[in-house]
This record gives sequence, structure tokens and C-alpha cells, in this order.
Amino acid sequence: MSDDHKAADKLWGGRFSEPTDAFVERFTASVGFDQRLYHHDIQGSIAHARMLAKVGVLAEAERDSIIEGLEAVRQDIEAGRFQWSVSLEDVHMNIEAALTERIGVTGKKLHTGRSRNDQIATDIRLYLRDEIDTIAAELNRLQEGLVELAEQEADTIMPGFTHLQSAQPVTFGHHMLAWYEMLDRDYGRLMDCRGRMNRMPLGAAALAGTSYPIDREYTAQLLGFDAPTANSLDSVSDRDFAIEFLSFASLLLTHLSRFSEELVLWTSAQFSFVDLPDRFCTGSSIMPQKKNPDVPELVRGKTGRVYGHLMSLLTLMKGQPLAYNKDNQEDKEPVFDVVDTVKGCLKAYADMMPSVGVNRNRTRSAARQGFATATDLADYLVRKGLAFRDAHEVVGQAVAHADENQCDLEDLGLDELQQFCADIGEDVYQVLTLDGSVQARNHIGGTAPEQVRGAVAQAREALARRRGTTTQD
Amino acid sequence: MSDDHKAADKLWGGRFSEPTDAFVERFTASVGFDQRLYHHDIQGSIAHARMLAKVGVLAEAERDSIIEGLEAVRQDIEAGRFQWSVSLEDVHMNIEAALTERIGVTGKKLHTGRSRNDQIATDIRLYLRDEIDTIAAELNRLQEGLVELAEQEADTIMPGFTHLQSAQPVTFGHHMLAWYEMLDRDYGRLMDCRGRMNRMPLGAAALAGTSYPIDREYTAQLLGFDAPTANSLDSVSDRDFAIEFLSFASLLLTHLSRFSEELVLWTSAQFSFVDLPDRFCTGSSIMPQKKNPDVPELVRGKTGRVYGHLMSLLTLMKGQPLAYNKDNQEDKEPVFDVVDTVKGCLKAYADMMPSVGVNRNRTRSAARQGFATATDLADYLVRKGLAFRDAHEVVGQAVAHADENQCDLEDLGLDELQQFCADIGEDVYQVLTLDGSVQARNHIGGTAPEQVRGAVAQAREALARRRGTTTQD
Amino acid sequence: MSDDHKAADKLWGGRFSEPTDAFVERFTASVGFDQRLYHHDIQGSIAHARMLAKVGVLAEAERDSIIEGLEAVRQDIEAGRFQWSVSLEDVHMNIEAALTERIGVTGKKLHTGRSRNDQIATDIRLYLRDEIDTIAAELNRLQEGLVELAEQEADTIMPGFTHLQSAQPVTFGHHMLAWYEMLDRDYGRLMDCRGRMNRMPLGAAALAGTSYPIDREYTAQLLGFDAPTANSLDSVSDRDFAIEFLSFASLLLTHLSRFSEELVLWTSAQFSFVDLPDRFCTGSSIMPQKKNPDVPELVRGKTGRVYGHLMSLLTLMKGQPLAYNKDNQEDKEPVFDVVDTVKGCLKAYADMMPSVGVNRNRTRSAARQGFATATDLADYLVRKGLAFRDAHEVVGQAVAHADENQCDLEDLGLDELQQFCADIGEDVYQVLTLDGSVQARNHIGGTAPEQVRGAVAQAREALARRRGTTTQD
Amino acid sequence: MSDDHKAADKLWGGRFSEPTDAFVERFTASVGFDQRLYHHDIQGSIAHARMLAKVGVLAEAERDSIIEGLEAVRQDIEAGRFQWSVSLEDVHMNIEAALTERIGVTGKKLHTGRSRNDQIATDIRLYLRDEIDTIAAELNRLQEGLVELAEQEADTIMPGFTHLQSAQPVTFGHHMLAWYEMLDRDYGRLMDCRGRMNRMPLGAAALAGTSYPIDREYTAQLLGFDAPTANSLDSVSDRDFAIEFLSFASLLLTHLSRFSEELVLWTSAQFSFVDLPDRFCTGSSIMPQKKNPDVPELVRGKTGRVYGHLMSLLTLMKGQPLAYNKDNQEDKEPVFDVVDTVKGCLKAYADMMPSVGVNRNRTRSAARQGFATATDLADYLVRKGLAFRDAHEVVGQAVAHADENQCDLEDLGLDELQQFCADIGEDVYQVLTLDGSVQARNHIGGTAPEQVRGAVAQAREALARRRGTTTQD
Repeated sequence: MSDDHKAADKLWGGRFSEPTDAFVERFTASVGFDQRLYHHDIQGSIAHARMLAKVGVLAEAERDSIIEGLEAVRQDIEAGRFQWSVSLEDVHMNIEAALTERIGVTGKKLHTGRSRNDQIATDIRLYLRDEIDTIAAELNRLQEGLVELAEQEADTIMPGFTHLQSAQPVTFGHHMLAWYEMLDRDYGRLMDCRGRMNRMPLGAAALAGTSYPIDREYTAQLLGFDAPTANSLDSVSDRDFAIEFLSFASLLLTHLSRFSEELVLWTSAQFSFVDLPDRFCTGSSIMPQKKNPDVPELVRGKTGRVYGHLMSLLTLMKGQPLAYNKDNQEDKEPVFDVVDTVKGCLKAYADMMPSVGVNRNRTRSAARQGFATATDLADYLVRKGLAFRDAHEVVGQAVAHADENQCDLEDLGLDELQQFCADIGEDVYQVLTLDGSVQARNHIGGTAPEQVRGAVAQAREALARRRGTTTQD
Repeated sequence: MSDDHKAADKLWGGRFSEPTDAFVERFTASVGFDQRLYHHDIQGSIAHARMLAKVGVLAEAERDSIIEGLEAVRQDIEAGRFQWSVSLEDVHMNIEAALTERIGVTGKKLHTGRSRNDQIATDIRLYLRDEIDTIAAELNRLQEGLVELAEQEADTIMPGFTHLQSAQPVTFGHHMLAWYEMLDRDYGRLMDCRGRMNRMPLGAAALAGTSYPIDREYTAQLLGFDAPTANSLDSVSDRDFAIEFLSFASLLLTHLSRFSEELVLWTSAQFSFVDLPDRFCTGSSIMPQKKNPDVPELVRGKTGRVYGHLMSLLTLMKGQPLAYNKDNQEDKEPVFDVVDTVKGCLKAYADMMPSVGVNRNRTRSAARQGFATATDLADYLVRKGLAFRDAHEVVGQAVAHADENQCDLEDLGLDELQQFCADIGEDVYQVLTLDGSVQARNHIGGTAPEQVRGAVAQAREALARRRGTTTQD
Repeated sequence: MSDDHKAADKLWGGRFSEPTDAFVERFTASVGFDQRLYHHDIQGSIAHARMLAKVGVLAEAERDSIIEGLEAVRQDIEAGRFQWSVSLEDVHMNIEAALTERIGVTGKKLHTGRSRNDQIATDIRLYLRDEIDTIAAELNRLQEGLVELAEQEADTIMPGFTHLQSAQPVTFGHHMLAWYEMLDRDYGRLMDCRGRMNRMPLGAAALAGTSYPIDREYTAQLLGFDAPTANSLDSVSDRDFAIEFLSFASLLLTHLSRFSEELVLWTSAQFSFVDLPDRFCTGSSIMPQKKNPDVPELVRGKTGRVYGHLMSLLTLMKGQPLAYNKDNQEDKEPVFDVVDTVKGCLKAYADMMPSVGVNRNRTRSAARQGFATATDLADYLVRKGLAFRDAHEVVGQAVAHADENQCDLEDLGLDELQQFCADIGEDVYQVLTLDGSVQARNHIGGTAPEQVRGAVAQAREALARRRGTTTQD
Repeated sequence: MSDDHKAADKLWGGRFSEPTDAFVERFTASVGFDQRLYHHDIQGSIAHARMLAKVGVLAEAERDSIIEGLEAVRQDIEAGRFQWSVSLEDVHMNIEAALTERIGVTGKKLHTGRSRNDQIATDIRLYLRDEIDTIAAELNRLQEGLVELAEQEADTIMPGFTHLQSAQPVTFGHHMLAWYEMLDRDYGRLMDCRGRMNRMPLGAAALAGTSYPIDREYTAQLLGFDAPTANSLDSVSDRDFAIEFLSFASLLLTHLSRFSEELVLWTSAQFSFVDLPDRFCTGSSIMPQKKNPDVPELVRGKTGRVYGHLMSLLTLMKGQPLAYNKDNQEDKEPVFDVVDTVKGCLKAYADMMPSVGVNRNRTRSAARQGFATATDLADYLVRKGLAFRDAHEVVGQAVAHADENQCDLEDLGLDELQQFCADIGEDVYQVLTLDGSVQARNHIGGTAPEQVRGAVAQAREALARRRGTTTQD
């Protein structure tokens, strides 16, 4: 192990007179976390070798030897036979050293015309592109679950809340489609991020490009990138794609935290709007009666984790001069952790939502509380000729009266109602029903069951189209 | 003033038995900051009135009276004649009250079929859409300035840095185009945000839609929205567009903070790469010799402001149940402040960049320090047959030798160089020149002057196309 | 106005050949927000003048003329007669210019031996020290309100929640004291921040100290600082106190957001644990029945605002080299806004809490739901000789049985209970009562009414001691 | 493994009819990271067992059996023989299950009178208290290194910067002591955090306390806590100490990022103020000449990591109702990562600083550039009778003149200087020297070598006192 510390053994040791401090070596090494990129590092190296052969920098036999060697290294890694070395610093040098050990001096030619700076920038884009495709699929699976539930509960009445006070009756299906819409914007942002990221930095070398006659368009094509990047200095210093991905994830978690807050509320004894199956809950080591909605709580808790990583990366990049600085090594762990977090949260929700049981009696009876049809009464009065503001005032007084008598509006007699406005007729009671209220909101985006069913149909079509086109590489 | 505090005077006072506490009234009022939305509030109200008339809820005369009244209110506001009242809480109620005072009972009909929840959601989108168009234009103006400077300095040699250590020579023009690329991604994100935001929430009413026969597509068309939103609950609770805009702004400021860091470095006595004109600098009250790069420093400092507002909005939305909660009132000030900050920073940079003076002698002589062509020597050795890793080792030793002798690589004699590798010939000196180094990096994205000129031409075309299509409403 | 732009008119214009750009002048000026510091700027200047006279740099008559002049300027400002000028950049130069205009050339001597760098560092500490004292008093007032409420509701039973599921019965008073404890830690942090901040930077001048024979200990004493700061470079670059204050505020708002979440839940129709008086609530412009808990919602919303400002200042300082950079100008607005926010939130809560009405029947009946005494049954079984883990298992089965039969544990017959464990006797029913449960938790920190009353007494004593010692200057 | 998923095997499975979903089990388990707390979990359990025996809940033989069993489990863990099980969720249940397997039914009695809620709250405080003591020692070691360097370079002249422009000459030692001061405030905050945290939550049980006759003061004493916490609900929901620790760490990293920025600048070819030893630097895989200041760069990069974790925890707690929610499980990883990060950064700096080599010629010659003694000239003129503002103007003109002639102020002839002010005499040249300038700033906190030596002596005393009293438990 002591040999490890001779700078002369490093791939960059030539000008150094003193080996790296043992602690500093560990402190600055990234191989502990960037080994996760091995697959994409090898993928990138193979494409690079092919390109070098195409432009004549490598002989065909050299290319083949390198590719064969890299594939063997990959197998070693996947079989758990690979020895990662901290003194080789990172995933790139570990793999290259293993390659050279395996195929000899030809291995040393692979690094021609590139640098670890463009190499890591390429690796992480390849990695993230794959993960984005997985995330997109999981996100769509959750959307499908919501659409199912929305259809199933298209007629279920629940109180719609503002300020957590009962506001107006809505349908449960309509509420599920609000969640669907949020996720759909998230999907759009994810695809925008993917598109903007899908440019290849390889060829930027350390920061200025290279004097070898490289063919960047060819390599880009081999790796499925839309094009090479346009500026080498930018290529090695740009971490926009990581921040944009974390911005996407922060909004996604914002949405999931809102769903979670609602599920936690709805499973409380006080609300009891829904039941979660036992398999998504856990108990208490001390209180034998407890059945806790752990999954939504934990997802809600993970929101901070994702926001934190976004702040971490923004801070990281703030005020850095071009091009590459060692600071940038800190970009990977946040990305990895957010990928894992997002996949876990989406999977948990996509698995859980189809099993959510809705207590239709509870939601309906809750909607009967809290004067949820007061707005309908005001609208009724407007149709009778009052200006809206005057109607609002009349209904406010009627509500205060009912509140004092601890009854709902529809429990007031016609004569009582007429005390507040003489224009009220027998037909008012139809307006004051929950079903009448939701059916009346029958326009694009409204809560009427008919609208919910229409929106469900449209969502299904959109998701089907998406399934047809999204392919993972 | 005491009258202000009677709840009965509020537009919602019907059910209340006690006036609002005076401090609470001030504490919860938003008119102090949301009056900035008056123009877009009136714009939205006029479209709403037209729609109500189209579907028969308002008579044509009522519509005309309302529109006329609103236009008069707008003139009052713009002439500074309008009395904003805290007891009327917000911009909407202030304007509606003024309208009713002016045109009588018809004014009270305007609020039919809408709520302040969908009204504010509409206002802020109209506002932000306008501001986005202004920002896009300013951003493009800065890009144009960078392109000019890049062309002008296409042949200027400077050291390219990694780890703030001289790495390889690059051209100043190439460096400017790295900045251009960052801004171009920002532009893309801004347009994506605009596109996703341009859906109309009006018609969602409080949260469930309305029982009036509204025509949302007509209103959307009047207001230049691509379509109405698809779900009423989502419409009044969604603040994604604000967060997405702040995410855009955070990345933009990340980039501007990096430019700023470089300008601060480059104007230091130690670097002296560029001069800023006096009119963009300030002095010291105590040190008579000082000329400080205030503009870049201040822009760098404003980065935290924008990150902070992003964090603020993310926190705001975390864990909020649907639909509208009073918390959401806190969404506006961060958006306003970021709009102002972004416009200010872009204007300052767009004004300043064309006047930046480049000290070509200083940048060139700096590039001569620090063995910036060492990589070229390694590449030369590879062309002579060494594997890259071996070449790297040889050059490392040559650098250590030159460093000891306090000279540059090109100052070493041929015999000295040959001590490290016998394959080195007389032709090595061409490789060790700065101009040879940059010209050799002549591929897409490389730093060669020819590539810079090509990239300038492409950028000009892209910007010209953009000018053709972007129109502000 | 055009004259304003001549650099020669600036207090630092000597070496400049070109006036400041008009936009840049506005963009970089701070007087728009730092005029708030006028009082403390003058306070500091007066002490500085006294010190200069003490060490002989100013004649006594000069000192008196300066002090008189500064007092007159203060009166002008407070009377609204003062013309703030953007071209004079900041509060310091505005006041100094006014002083010189008023008393002539002597005014120009005031800036001897100091710089705006140490001046602003002093001003903001003086300002923040005053605001901290106000905040501490308001915080203690809220604590007093909680203590009152705790005593009043020391016997009131409510469900204690974990995971928002009913866990065990607690007393309402105990819950209020949990809030008290959080605030008490906040108070401790605030005092620690105050103590660490109370060192005087004046005398650090621009960054290196001054060549005048100043007496920093005398000035520190005049201004009520504990001591002068120990290092001039640190003094002008340190913004720790601002960040520490924002860290305090972030935790305070964390706590207030938790209280707010609970109040919003508790005022919902589903919980109905408490009532807020009408004067702390507002209504809806469209839904006449609404009474919204605006104050807690808004306070909860303001949490993000404070977190954001903390993030803003941390980002601001990240990676800044010593000593003063223009970036630092951005430190003031976040501090001002957090001061205002904290004072507003504390006042709203301190005013509101004494009026909160507790619905004792609702809290008690809620506590009867959800098997809240299941832990007591387990403890009972342990006393009968079972190991706790076995007792937990038995009670879990009993709960599952009661849940199926939709009844509570105390509704099960003795024979039913004995099916799960033969050791259960008639005395079990005492254990299953709510009052028995809370009274049994009678140790330090436990929820028993006796403990609540003891904690109330201790809290009163602590607050009284504090009132005796905290004095505002 | 399939057995693992039967809820009946869980310590809380009694009331559940369905096993936990396998993915949910993994998703919600914390044992993957909280096993780090094993030492403190066992420490807490032993104290709890002693207390239970003291109050008669456990027999002495039971107590001894439990303690012996726990010690054996600890040895298994430390020897790497322990099998951690995800289906046992967390560190507590893993250890308890192992205990019971080892000592039989008595093991099940350990959980009497406590819950995982107060157990984890206790564990993490015990853990963090130990880590704080380690951090404090490392922080003081870095301070000692700075003090050494300050003394060694007490007379070394360098330019003091504001706006990264040369402002006034300072001594290198003075600059090091500015860093010392920042760290000293950090130390104070760390100790305040430790003091506030050192209260024992054990006994709060799930949230309400327990019906067993526990003696919390005894347990607190056994564990070295100052006292038990005062409120059970607060005890299990409080995460203030974690946030306060992260606030401390954020400020510490702010400071380290500022040192790092300076070291990166100072090691650049343009500055060359200091050299870092090779063992703290690394090279480039492509550029053979590079020697990069990796340690300061990486430390600067880690700033975002710590800020991010602070934001993560603040977000986590925002708006959570009392008492424990599953969200809180997310509190540990940020704390662990910050502990590791802080210890690593401090160690790297404490090791590195004593080896920093100062290039005294470079710092002195840099101080000669940039008119650093211009303020001294102004002060000289004030002593000759000019008002400071007039002197400032005169010097500004002299600087502009010297700048045009590309020379320094002291290179101007007396007659040239007298053109700007006739009062200038031959004695001016003494004032214009660097040494004269720094020696003149000879007051508390000033940069004069004498002051630096005084401050060094005081710092040494303070650190020695600290070493005497800080003991780690």
C-alpha cells in the first residue's frame, strides 16, 4: 500500500517531487462514489477508441484490443472481481490502469485526444440520460394509476378545500387529475432537460480541444448524442444539466410532498377519507394500536433532501471561474442521491396509488359540513337578478344564521331563507345539493363528472402516445 | 380610517361578527406589493367582461360600462391619482371597489363566475409573460455584445485555466463564446418556461369551476394564452411557473456570477487582462487610488438573492394541501424581486461588455507563463510514437527541469530536451509556440481562431432568426 | 440632475476621468434601502467625533459643531424634510454631505480615521442590537401567552399525535408548553447571537486600521459595545452576526410554522379543536361561508421567506476573498426583511394566542378515538408480569379485534379482553380511561396535569427574571 | 428471507393483517445508515437498564444480564460479526433482537418505559456530543497552526485587498489572524450548540412520558447530560440541535471557503504569494505541467454540500405538526455527512497550514503596485491641515497622474507632488513606504507587527486555557 503513495505512480506524477499525503489522497479521491459510472465510462471509451481508429490515430488492431480489454474489465466489475484503488483516484484511472495491465502498452493510447475533464462530463451525461428514461417511465406509470383512480371515483363527492376549510364540493376523480396535471408538467420539464443535455462534450479535452484530428460528430453519433457541444471551455465547466435535473426533481418532490400531506391528512382519524393497505404502513414499537402512513410521510420528508441538493449544486457553481475546478467533483453525489430518491419515491407512489381505498361515505358526509354549497346559492341569486357582490352579502348572512343554529344551508326552511332575500324560491334546494353543485361545473377544467371522464380519456391517449415513442437506450 | 376596519365593509364580511384586527389587516394585506399587477389585473378583467357578455351573463351595455370604467381606473393609477387602501386588501378589490364607485352597481357584476384565486393566478401569468419577453430581449442583447467581442478578439491569446492554474493557451474570443453558450441554454430554459406557463387559469373560480356557462377558450384567446388550463383545482394551487422561472433565473445568475468572478480577477493588478471603463466603476471614500469593479461584484452578490428566492418559493409550496392557502400570497414578492434583479443585471452586463478593453499584451505574456504548451509537447511525442501516458511522463520531467531553471519549455535547448526523450527534433519549437497551439485545436468546439469565427457566424444567424420571431405583446 | 453624474462630485472622484453611468449609479446605489440605518449611522458618527476630540484630532469646538449638525440632520430626516440623493450612493455620504452643507468645512473632518467599510459594519450592528432587544421582548410576550393558556388548559385532554395518528392522550396545557420550550431555545440562541455580535468594528477603517491615534475602547464604551473587535481585516469582512441572526430566525420560523400547521389543522371542520376569533381571520370574495385562518397560514408561508434570506446570505459570503467586496452590499435587505418578518409574526401570534378558544369536548372525544390508551394496557400487562414485547403483541391483537368491531378498547367486555390474555382483571378499566392515562405520566417532562402546573410555575419565574434584566437601549 | 416480510415478526406486528411490501420495507428502513449509532444506542440502553433496576422495574440480575448481553452485542458489531437486518428496520430493533436472542426473554424487558422516539433522540445527541468534541479539538488545532504562521510572518508585507484591488499594505500575520478570529466565533457557536443540546430526552417515551416510575435525573447523570428535557412532546419532535449544528457548520464552511478562495488565488501564477507542498496538490492526466491546489478547491466545493444539508433539514421540519412523524427519519444522513465533511475539511486544513510557504518577495512587490499607500498620503495631508475630504481629492489627482506615467506615488519627485498640494514636504517619502504604513496602524486590531505579536500572545493563552478545560467523554 505504501507504494500507492508515490506520486511517480500516478498518471500525472512526472513533475512532482513528493508523494501525495495519505489523508489528502483519500480526501480528494472520488472513486468511492464515481465507480457507479463504470458502465458509461466504458461505453464512452469504446466510442472514443472507435473514433480514434476511424481518423487513423489508432490502428484497427489496437482499437479491437482496447475494446476487448474494456469489455473484460466491465465483466470483472460486474462480477465483483474488480479491485478499486483509492490511489488511482477515480473511475477513469482505475479502469484505464486495469486496461493497461490487461492489454499492455496499447492501453496507454486510449487517453489520446481526451482528458478526464471531458471524459467525466460525458460519463455523467450518458448516465443521467439513462436514468432520466427510467424516471420518465416510472412517472408515467404513476400517472396511469392516477387516471385509473380518477375514472373509478369520477362521481365520488368530497369537500374541496381552500385554507383547509371546506370550500365547495368537488369530485374525488377531479382531485386525482389535479395531481396528474402536476406530474404532466414535471414530465415536460424532464424531457426539456434531457433534450438540452443530449450534447456531447467529448473532444473538449482539458479545456481547449485537442490537436489530434478527431471526428466529434462520429463519436456523438455512436453514443446517441444529438450533436457535439459547441465550445470546449463551456463543455468542461458546464454543470447546467445537473442543476436543471435537480430543479425538475425539486418541483416533482414539491408535488409529491403535497400529495403526501393530503394522504397523511386523509388517513387521520379526523378525516378518514382514504385507507392505505397495511403493506404500505408500519407500526409502533411502543403503541400497539398504531398504523402509520410511513410512505407518504417519508416521501414528504425526502423533499428537503432534494431541495438541499439543488442548493448544494447552485452554491457549488456560484462564482467559479472557467474552466474546470476541483470543486466540481462535488457535483456527482447530489445527482446520484437525487436519482435514487426520485426513483424510490415514484416507485413507492406508483405501487401504492392503485391500492388506495376511498371511503365514499366519509368524503360525502364531510362535504355536507361547512356550507360547501354557499357559492351555489350566491350564483342562484345572481341568476335571480342580484349583483354578485350583493348576493355574496346575502349568503354570508344566511351562513351566519345557519352556523348559529348549527345546521347546514339546506336545512333552513324556505321562509327562513326568504328572510335574507325574498327572491329565493322552492327551486333553491336543488342548487343546495352536492350533486347539483358538482354537475353544474361542467366546463373545461371544471369538477363535473362528465368533465372528469373526458379528461381521463384525453390523459389515456397522451400516455399511450408517450409509451409508443419513449424508448430507453 | 376606523370605518375601514368594519368587516361588514369587506367584500366578504357577511358572516363575520367582529371587524379584522387593525394589525392583522396590515399584516395580511397584499396591496402594498401586488398593486404592481394593476395593468394585468385590468387586462384580465376586460377579457372576462367580454366573455361574460359573449355568453349572455352581462348585457353589452354592462360590458361596455365595465370596460370604460376599468380604463378610467387604469388612467387614474397611471396618473398617480389612485388611493390604494389596505383595508381593501389587494389589487383586485381595490380596483373593483373603484370601478363600482365609478359606474355603480354594474361594477359588482364583474366578479361573476370568477374568484380572486383564479384572478391572481391569471394576473401573475400575464405579468410574468410580459417580463419574460423583456428579459429574453435583454439576454439576446448581451449575447450580441459577446459575439462582437469574440470576433474582435478571435486571435487574441490568453491562458486557459483549470484550477486557476494556467493550463493551455486559448483565444479570448473562444472564452467569450463559452459565456455565449451558457446564455443560450438560459434562453432555451426561459422559452420552455414561457411555453409551459402560457395556459389560462381563469374559469377555475375558487377551486371547482363555476356554474355559469363560461367560454374559457374565448377568454384564453383574448388574452393570448395557448389554451385554458385543464383542471380547476390545479389551476388555483399551481405555482410551478414561478418556481420554474426562478430556476431559470438561478442558473442565469450562476452564469453571470462566473463571468463576474472572471472580470473581478481579470481587472486585478495581478491579472490586468481587461479594463473596465470608469463609468462602470466606483471609488473609495478613504483610499483615493481605488477604482473598483462594482458592477461585476454586485452582480455576483445578487446571485444569493436569486437562489434565496428560489429556496423561499420551494419551501412555501412544500407540503401544502390543495387548493389555495393563504401561504401562497408569499409567492409574489420573490417573483417581483427576481424580475427586477434579472433585468438589472442583464442591462448592466449588456451595456458594459461592448466597452471592455482587452490588454492583449498581458494576456499573451500570461499565456507564456506556466508551461501552457506542455500538452502540445506530449501530443508531439505521441506523434513520434510514444504512448500518451509515456509522453505525459516525459513532459512532466521536462517541466520539472524547466521549473527548477525558472524558464519556459521553449527556452530549453534541443540537447536539454533530448535528455528527456531522444525522439525530440528541431520541429518541436513550432509546437511549443502559443499560436501553433491554438491553431492546432481546429475542430468543432476547439479554440482555433478559425473555429471562433465560424461559431460567431452561426451565433449571429441564430440571434437574427430569434429577433425575427420574438415579439413582445 | 445631470451634475449628479460628474465623478468629480463624488467623494471619491479624484482619479476618475469619466462620470458614472446613470443606470450604474442607480444599480449600485444602496441609499434606497440603507437609509433605514440613519439613526444608528448618526449615533456612531457622534461617538466617533467624541473620540476624535478626546485624542486631539478634532478640536472641542469642531466636535460640538459636528454633533450639533448631525442632530439637526437627524431632525430633518425624522421630519421628512431630508432629500436623499442616489448620486450620493448611501446613507453615510448623504448624511455627511448634508452635514458639510450645514456646518461647512468642519464636516469634512468627520471621516478622519474611518472608512465606510467599518462605518457600515458598525451601523448595522447597532441597528440589529436594537431590533434584537425588541424581538426578545415580543418573544417573551408570546411565551407568557402560552404559559397562561397552558395553565388554563392543564386538565384538558386531547389526543397526542405521532404520524398524525392518535397515539396517546395528552393534556392541552402540556402541548402548549412544548411550544414554550421551542421558543425558549430560540430565546437562548438570540441572546448568544447578541453577545457575539456586540463587538465594535469602528477603527478598522478600510481594512488595515488607521494611522491616527484612535482610542477604540473609548468609542466602544460610548456605543455600549462590550469591546472593540480584535482584527481589522476580519472586522470589515465579517457578516457572521447577520447569518447567525438569520439562523436564529430560521429556527424560530420553523417553530412558528409548526404551530401554524397545528392551528390550521385544529380549526378545520374535521378537527375543530380550537376557534380563532373573527378578528384574526378573513373571508372569501366568492364563497360567502368561509372563515379562513389567515394568520397562521401566512406565518407558515413566511417560513420560506426567512429560509430564503438565510440561503441568500450564505451564498453571498461563499468564496469571497478578504476584505470588503461590493457583494457585501447585498447583506442588508435580507436582514431588514427578516427583522420585519420576525417582528410581524411574533406580534400576530402574541396577540392571537390569548384569544384562542379550546373546544374541550371535541379534543376529549377525539382522544377517545383511535385506541389512545393501548400503551397503557401494554404497561398494565407488564405490571402483571409480561415482558413488554409480549404485552405489545397481545394489545396489538386486542386492537385489531376492537377495530373489526368498530369499538374502543374500553368498550370490550372483560371476557373478550381475557381471550387475549388471561391475566387481565377488572382493574384494567381504570387504566383504559383518558384521565388515568395522563395522570399516570407524572414525572419531569410528563403530560400529567400536576407536571404541567409545575412547569407553568417554573416558566413564570424564568420569564419574570428575564423581564428584570432585559433592558432595551 | 421471505419470513422477514411477515408483519407478525415485526416488533409492532400485532394489529397488522398483511406483511410489509418488500420494496416499502427497504424504502422505509433506516438501518443502512443509523447503524452508525450502535455505540451510543448501547450506551443509552445500558443507562436505561440501570435506571430501571434502580426504580425496581428490573431485578438486579435482569439488569446485569441485559448489560452483559449489550456489551457482547457491541463486541460482535465491532468485530464485524453482526448481521444487520433490513426487516428489523433500524439500529434499535436490530440490537434489541440480537440481545433477546442472546439472553432470552429478559431482553424483551429493556424497552419498558421508553419508545424508539425518545431512544433515537437520545442516541443522536450522544453521538453528536462526541463528534462535537472531536471537531472542537480539530478546530483548535487549525487555530494553533494559524497562530504559528501569524507569528512567523508578523513582519511580512502584502497588499490588503478590497474589491480584489490593492487597497493598503497589511502584514501577512495580520491576515492569518483574521482567519483565526472567524474560527474563534465558530468555536463559540459550537460550544453554545453543545450546551443547548446537552439535555436528555429519554423518558419522553412515545410522546407523553410513561406510566412507569422512572428516574430521569439519574439516567441523565449516568449519560453525562446536564438535565432531562422539560417537555415530552417537545423532546421527541425537537431537531433544533441538528439544525443548530448545521448552522454552525455552514458558517464554518463559509469561512473555510473564503480561506480556500484566497489560497487558490495566492497559488495562481499571477499572484504567487504562497506555495503549497506537493503532497497537498494533484496533477492532470493530460497536462503534464499542472500542480493543482486540490485541497482548497475541494473544501470550497464542499461548502455547497453543507449549505444544502442545512436547507434540507430546515425544509424537513417546516410545517410538521407535533410530535414524531416519519419525515424525521431523514434527519440523520445530513448530520452524519456534515460531521464527516467538517472533520475532513478541518483535518486537511490543520495539516496543510503549517506547511504553507510564503513568498515574501512576491507579496512585498505586489504591495508596491496599486498605490497602496495613497491613504497614508491623505492622512499625511490631514496632519498638514487639510480636511480629509480635500486631502482625498488631492491624492486622487496624484494617483491619476502617477497612473498615466506608469509609476508609483513614491516614484514621483517632490516637485511633481507639490503640484497637487504645496504643503507636501520631504518627509512625505517616509509615509509612502510600506513599512511606515503598516507600523503606523498600531492600535487594537490594527495591522502593525507589534499588534500582531500581541494578538498572537493572547490567542495562545486562550487556546491553552481551552486545552486545559475541554475534555472529551
